[in-house]
Amino acid sequence: MNMLNTIDRMESEIRGYVRSFPVVFESATKATLRTVDGREFIDFFAGAGTLNYGHNNEKANERMIEYIQKHGVQHGLDTATRAKIDFIETFESLILKPRNLDFKLQFTGPTGTNSVEAAIKLARKLKKRSHIIAFTNAYHGHSLGSLALTGNQYYHDEHYGSHDNVTHMPFDGYLGDDIDTSLLLEKMLLDGSSGLPKPAAIILETIQCEGGIKVASPQWLKRIEKICRDNDILLIIDDIQTGNGRTGEFFSFEASGIRPDLICLSKSIGGGLPMSLVLISRELDVWKPGQHTGTFRGNNLAFVASRACLENWKEADAFTKQTFAKGKLVQAAFQSIVDSNPTRNFSVRGRGMVWGIDLGNGELAGKVVQESFNNGLIIETAGADGHVVKFLAPLVIDESQLKDGLEILNRAFETQIGSGDASSQTTSQSSIMPQVGDNNPPSIGNFITE
Amino acid sequence: MNMLNTIDRMESEIRGYVRSFPVVFESATKATLRTVDGREFIDFFAGAGTLNYGHNNEKANERMIEYIQKHGVQHGLDTATRAKIDFIETFESLILKPRNLDFKLQFTGPTGTNSVEAAIKLARKLKKRSHIIAFTNAYHGHSLGSLALTGNQYYHDEHYGSHDNVTHMPFDGYLGDDIDTSLLLEKMLLDGSSGLPKPAAIILETIQCEGGIKVASPQWLKRIEKICRDNDILLIIDDIQTGNGRTGEFFSFEASGIRPDLICLSKSIGGGLPMSLVLISRELDVWKPGQHTGTFRGNNLAFVASRACLENWKEADAFTKQTFAKGKLVQAAFQSIVDSNPTRNFSVRGRGMVWGIDLGNGELAGKVVQESFNNGLIIETAGADGHVVKFLAPLVIDESQLKDGLEILNRAFETQIGSGDASSQTTSQSSIMPQVGDNNPPSIGNFITE
Amino acid sequence: MNMLNTIDRMESEIRGYVRSFPVVFESATKATLRTVDGREFIDFFAGAGTLNYGHNNEKANERMIEYIQKHGVQHGLDTATRAKIDFIETFESLILKPRNLDFKLQFTGPTGTNSVEAAIKLARKLKKRSHIIAFTNAYHGHSLGSLALTGNQYYHDEHYGSHDNVTHMPFDGYLGDDIDTSLLLEKMLLDGSSGLPKPAAIILETIQCEGGIKVASPQWLKRIEKICRDNDILLIIDDIQTGNGRTGEFFSFEASGIRPDLICLSKSIGGGLPMSLVLISRELDVWKPGQHTGTFRGNNLAFVASRACLENWKEADAFTKQTFAKGKLVQAAFQSIVDSNPTRNFSVRGRGMVWGIDLGNGELAGKVVQESFNNGLIIETAGADGHVVKFLAPLVIDESQLKDGLEILNRAFETQIGSGDASSQTTSQSSIMPQVGDNNPPSIGNFITE
Amino acid sequence: MNMLNTIDRMESEIRGYVRSFPVVFESATKATLRTVDGREFIDFFAGAGTLNYGHNNEKANERMIEYIQKHGVQHGLDTATRAKIDFIETFESLILKPRNLDFKLQFTGPTGTNSVEAAIKLARKLKKRSHIIAFTNAYHGHSLGSLALTGNQYYHDEHYGSHDNVTHMPFDGYLGDDIDTSLLLEKMLLDGSSGLPKPAAIILETIQCEGGIKVASPQWLKRIEKICRDNDILLIIDDIQTGNGRTGEFFSFEASGIRPDLICLSKSIGGGLPMSLVLISRELDVWKPGQHTGTFRGNNLAFVASRACLENWKEADAFTKQTFAKGKLVQAAFQSIVDSNPTRNFSVRGRGMVWGIDLGNGELAGKVVQESFNNGLIIETAGADGHVVKFLAPLVIDESQLKDGLEILNRAFETQIGSGDASSQTTSQSSIMPQVGDNNPPSIGNFITE
Repeated sequence: MNMLNTIDRMESEIRGYVRSFPVVFESATKATLRTVDGREFIDFFAGAGTLNYGHNNEKANERMIEYIQKHGVQHGLDTATRAKIDFIETFESLILKPRNLDFKLQFTGPTGTNSVEAAIKLARKLKKRSHIIAFTNAYHGHSLGSLALTGNQYYHDEHYGSHDNVTHMPFDGYLGDDIDTSLLLEKMLLDGSSGLPKPAAIILETIQCEGGIKVASPQWLKRIEKICRDNDILLIIDDIQTGNGRTGEFFSFEASGIRPDLICLSKSIGGGLPMSLVLISRELDVWKPGQHTGTFRGNNLAFVASRACLENWKEADAFTKQTFAKGKLVQAAFQSIVDSNPTRNFSVRGRGMVWGIDLGNGELAGKVVQESFNNGLIIETAGADGHVVKFLAPLVIDESQLKDGLEILNRAFETQIGSGDASSQTTSQSSIMPQVGDNNPPSIGNFITE
Repeated sequence: MNMLNTIDRMESEIRGYVRSFPVVFESATKATLRTVDGREFIDFFAGAGTLNYGHNNEKANERMIEYIQKHGVQHGLDTATRAKIDFIETFESLILKPRNLDFKLQFTGPTGTNSVEAAIKLARKLKKRSHIIAFTNAYHGHSLGSLALTGNQYYHDEHYGSHDNVTHMPFDGYLGDDIDTSLLLEKMLLDGSSGLPKPAAIILETIQCEGGIKVASPQWLKRIEKICRDNDILLIIDDIQTGNGRTGEFFSFEASGIRPDLICLSKSIGGGLPMSLVLISRELDVWKPGQHTGTFRGNNLAFVASRACLENWKEADAFTKQTFAKGKLVQAAFQSIVDSNPTRNFSVRGRGMVWGIDLGNGELAGKVVQESFNNGLIIETAGADGHVVKFLAPLVIDESQLKDGLEILNRAFETQIGSGDASSQTTSQSSIMPQVGDNNPPSIGNFITE
Repeated sequence: MNMLNTIDRMESEIRGYVRSFPVVFESATKATLRTVDGREFIDFFAGAGTLNYGHNNEKANERMIEYIQKHGVQHGLDTATRAKIDFIETFESLILKPRNLDFKLQFTGPTGTNSVEAAIKLARKLKKRSHIIAFTNAYHGHSLGSLALTGNQYYHDEHYGSHDNVTHMPFDGYLGDDIDTSLLLEKMLLDGSSGLPKPAAIILETIQCEGGIKVASPQWLKRIEKICRDNDILLIIDDIQTGNGRTGEFFSFEASGIRPDLICLSKSIGGGLPMSLVLISRELDVWKPGQHTGTFRGNNLAFVASRACLENWKEADAFTKQTFAKGKLVQAAFQSIVDSNPTRNFSVRGRGMVWGIDLGNGELAGKVVQESFNNGLIIETAGADGHVVKFLAPLVIDESQLKDGLEILNRAFETQIGSGDASSQTTSQSSIMPQVGDNNPPSIGNFITE
Repeated sequence: MNMLNTIDRMESEIRGYVRSFPVVFESATKATLRTVDGREFIDFFAGAGTLNYGHNNEKANERMIEYIQKHGVQHGLDTATRAKIDFIETFESLILKPRNLDFKLQFTGPTGTNSVEAAIKLARKLKKRSHIIAFTNAYHGHSLGSLALTGNQYYHDEHYGSHDNVTHMPFDGYLGDDIDTSLLLEKMLLDGSSGLPKPAAIILETIQCEGGIKVASPQWLKRIEKICRDNDILLIIDDIQTGNGRTGEFFSFEASGIRPDLICLSKSIGGGLPMSLVLISRELDVWKPGQHTGTFRGNNLAFVASRACLENWKEADAFTKQTFAKGKLVQAAFQSIVDSNPTRNFSVRGRGMVWGIDLGNGELAGKVVQESFNNGLIIETAGADGHVVKFLAPLVIDESQLKDGLEILNRAFETQIGSGDASSQTTSQSSIMPQVGDNNPPSIGNFITE
């Protein structure tokens, strides 16, 4: 594997996934990745949720080639281009209007973290308050403003100044099934002596993917929304990883019936190319010209690709139905793994096409993922200790390939766990009782095993 | 101009350049932009320095089309791909090795601000200090960590928390020609009671482009470098806008002979597509895996395009020479404008292919830019009050087109100033005497005049 | 009441207690205050816990007069004086040695807040971490470092920067009797992704007096101590209001058996004169000379007065017994008020000579306090809404006077509540269900009623 | 020196002055200190400016004894007492009215730092801005808000969070005599891109005592005042060490003709006992009740002592004249030392009864001070490197004793310097050229030499 020498020699030690997947990829289509030496992998990772519409989406590719050939503007800052206007109109007609969402679009620098930075800036500006509430296990990015919202201390350093103006409250389920954590939040907000400053906004992911596929219930989301309304606090949904149909509907919050004030979109919205948006409830758009700028907020190739991919939503119901149908296969496969290991406290969480099987054990999860990789499946872990095997395949994966991947995963479990060995029995996470967890990156288990 | 309705209706009020250039662009090549209704514009703006190698660089386009057709991996997180390895090897052989720079590459989220965030994080982590020194009129981006470094208060808000851990010191020339501002910096650093905390790093642009084409002298840069060495402080050069040959050599600091510890690259490095890098002096690469991540740090189309564009550096000397030759034309044209208006204190600053003509008056600069636009030239203002007309054409612009553009600009000056009207005589900026300046975006003049 | 005109005309609007008690006091002994016009008041407030040893403690007065007459050094910065050395030796022999506490003394500026500032500085310095954990309803003072620890938002302002580096966790009982809040704290500390930065220290009051007489159980304190030990976190006890025998023993934490790392003392330690101390576990004394200074840290008159008052601890057991005996009278009287109003959810909390009767209603508490004042009793409210009537009489109050005061209070309740009117029935605070509470100062009820 | 063992064993390593002056003081009158073993010292330090009216001021002592004997209220929180009202009326009639200052009084916790904290809080609250500008070498105290304003990094630590929301600008003379540093301040304030956030207030000492007797010129103060007025910024004068007649007039700024918005008073205002005030220009008193409280803001013994001492201002002109007369003696003596050592760049700075002789050399200054101490004179150093010998005797010192002290000091110089040894020639500080200075406490030289 000679070519990797270049990586080892020249790329910073910060490199991550290349350690988990030490091969050189060359091409990809839909849910298949191919290496320079001809190996094929099924992709259950989808660029950490960036490839909902598949690698090299056929329509997107056609349009991009055509666009390049016609010398379409590629880089346009935030000037108007035909590609941009086409994208906006498509997004308006296919996504916003059918959902009665009267939102304006802010194109930010094309990274999710930039979208989050813009959203919390706007919230702070609007409410004239500095504080933001995020949740345990939250993941919102790595630039300083977003990092403050991100729970994992592995990403923080005493000298970053990355803890200011944010308080993390327990996410839904954090204290076990019996305690509604929104009540703690509400009590501390209403109690003028709680020490919790009144925030400008509450930001949350409806499903915490990096955090370990932690799923907020619709009721909890409704309660959070009500707390925001009752207390003049903005509600920001970070739908960067969970949007674009990942949970079934286009937005992850649709099923709960809440209406956020600001919505962050990135990852799949660009059809695999860098692109980010903040959706701003129309009446909140108090920005002045250029107050949050960025060179690449007009990535026109992404507009072209995105528009092609968004056409999946012309038949939104059908597309959503397919997602749920495939998701059921995953859920069933995961549940079967859980059921096959009754002495262990495995559990399955997820919705649509995002699923996690919580092993309560980062080492084991790492081994399963490694074994899968060895057998041709790309899948990753999540959670503070990398203790959750996370399923994030392209939504457009073929059913047969999906089944093949699930079978590889199933065998990886069998290989790594063996026949009912209960010696390393894991413990439940569903109580308030603490568990030891070092400050690990979600998949450090993998980083180590190679 | 119907299509702009979509922009007005659906894009946030934050939109900027579309207000200065209220047309819809469709295609572009080299230094020419074309609108949907067939108008052509000469581009002296180059995507704010993103298009040094031209719009739709021919070689880059060919390679991208070929890459897409072969279903090359487009989105790869930070896994190894052939495109990435090829880029690294090209960058190593054409850029780093010939300059004896033993640096490693960190691919960050593909925005300049993300590169800056990564660099200051690494500096803080390395030195176990939180403070960073930046300079008056500095521009380093808009995410919270970078925003703290950016001088223009128009971008700040009392509730962002965007002033922490940074002190701005006077840039070269800020107090007039007679005062070496590095002495103030050094005195305050050495004086344990000055109130200036010992910083982890000093970050600077060798030419402050957004700040108004303020050019640091080689001697001043040398002194700053020495101050860093003497005081165990890291030196970070933000070469996002000034790198990639903009000032002649690939890096803007080459002429001064300094060697930074960390270098931020973005904009043109991606050949027009989103891409960013931190170059890390090898011994400083203490990152642990995944400590600063981002979804799009592996934008493979940008690797492909970039590699094609970097081939300009195979004949580095010739490429640099061309830049200087074209730059001389610009300088001469600008100087001629200055000379034609002796009663006004206009002045010319710049190097290579980045030039500014300082009018000391944002309103006039805005009018000149607007008039130029009306006559087919895209050019922008810079500086705190938008009082500097800034030249940033693609390096590869044809000489004849360059001359055409300069002629349009010259006429715009003539039209806007008339024949020697000295009534609105501007004042010199070269003394320590203050001038009134509202918190404006660099080009707010334009925003307003439309 | 002419003399109050001077106050109204010349003292800032920030004045507080003078609004609750609009008389001019002239002299005082033990637990009796006298006004310029000859009215007498029984003092159940004791200078907010500063006068445990009584107003004008006889022995302290004698010694001070003698000291002044001999021209004893009054102001000595932190030079050695006989008075200071005598104080230190008395404190060592009467307080530290009998309790096996190997602590050193840091004399800080003579305010409680200064003691807290010094303690958290030392903790941050020692652990090289910036974060501190405090608790809901905590009160630690008003200078910026201490204010960050103080829960009541009435004292904060968006522009103070007073929320940095502190997280407030739920105090014992905050979520009702069934939830051990230390488990939430522990879970978030052990969970590397909880978003809670690892703190340098946990600071707490064993009984939150200003917070509304919230009493931490010994078991909870033990658990917090263990969490500190397990996680390399320092434990700071703020015994400013609860020390000096207020809860029975000299230190409020003695009964629980915990051993803090740092202890803050002020208020009664100076016998009524300004004085503050940090007690530092010997091995943690890493201060360098002068790193936290202050002009009045050598208030020698306070040393003289304090030494006289500390002699109460020569017979510590007897002194403590007396405190408990008097406290039982208070508890019984308060319980009787609770029992007389069975339809209301009043409750009694406290220990030693600090008691609160929680009315769940700041308006009623204000009226009771006002009525008491009208009948010759000084007593105050506490809690976020001023909803708790707080008993803090001098420990040395005579039993007969204590009974007189309790009788006045009892009648005030009868007057204000009437005969069993249940129309304004209050609600319990013992559940996680939130209650509305504006950002009020503890006794704003009183401020308003005058 | 047995008794010092107690100090060594039991007092924190943070102790400072006891290291410089390793004796045990017992009594004191006016400007004389006596030790337990009968040694006498002339006091040129005056409790760091706390004893302007002398040790054991006779009138103050008489009144205090009388007050104690009558059981006057000693601790009264902020209730009205006769002693407090008497103090207010005296302060109003003797200090405020004759100077046409329509200010209200805020009694803060009785430490200078608390007064500063209150002042900057009020400024931030009023202006709804967080930033404050302080100056190089500023000293404003040690609690977190004040510490941020204090220049000496010896007092700071990376983990205190003590650098937020403050920028230090060069004080008058910092860049040499030729550069008016107010121009830099003004330029950066007016330049919307300078990176300097618009502050709520500018705080300064008219003479920086701890900073090394750096004297602001009246013109510079006027310019700063004008900058404040032009830019809607509050002007806070910290007159804690320089007030109470230290510079001649009661307030140090009287001679310059400026009118601050807020004035901090402490140290001598209490006649040697702990007391602090913020004087608030009447229209700025927007405090709400209790928003900045503190237990000891009603230190009634200090009110009694203060009132006695303030009677010196009944004949303000005469008192001021005396101060200038004595000050001239000091200036002459210091100048004579400078003149006797022409090869060294010594210099004299000061006004009224605050003087410094700048040796440009902390080691030498330490030796001079130590030698003086050995010969019966208490005097201290100041400045970042302890390189300035600082004169701060009680204003009421007898002329003969003043001369005796100056003679001791003169001999100490002769002893330590010898006859014209130019080998350790010091360098001038009057240029912008930096000098090496470690982060030392003002008198660390002394700390080390014992």
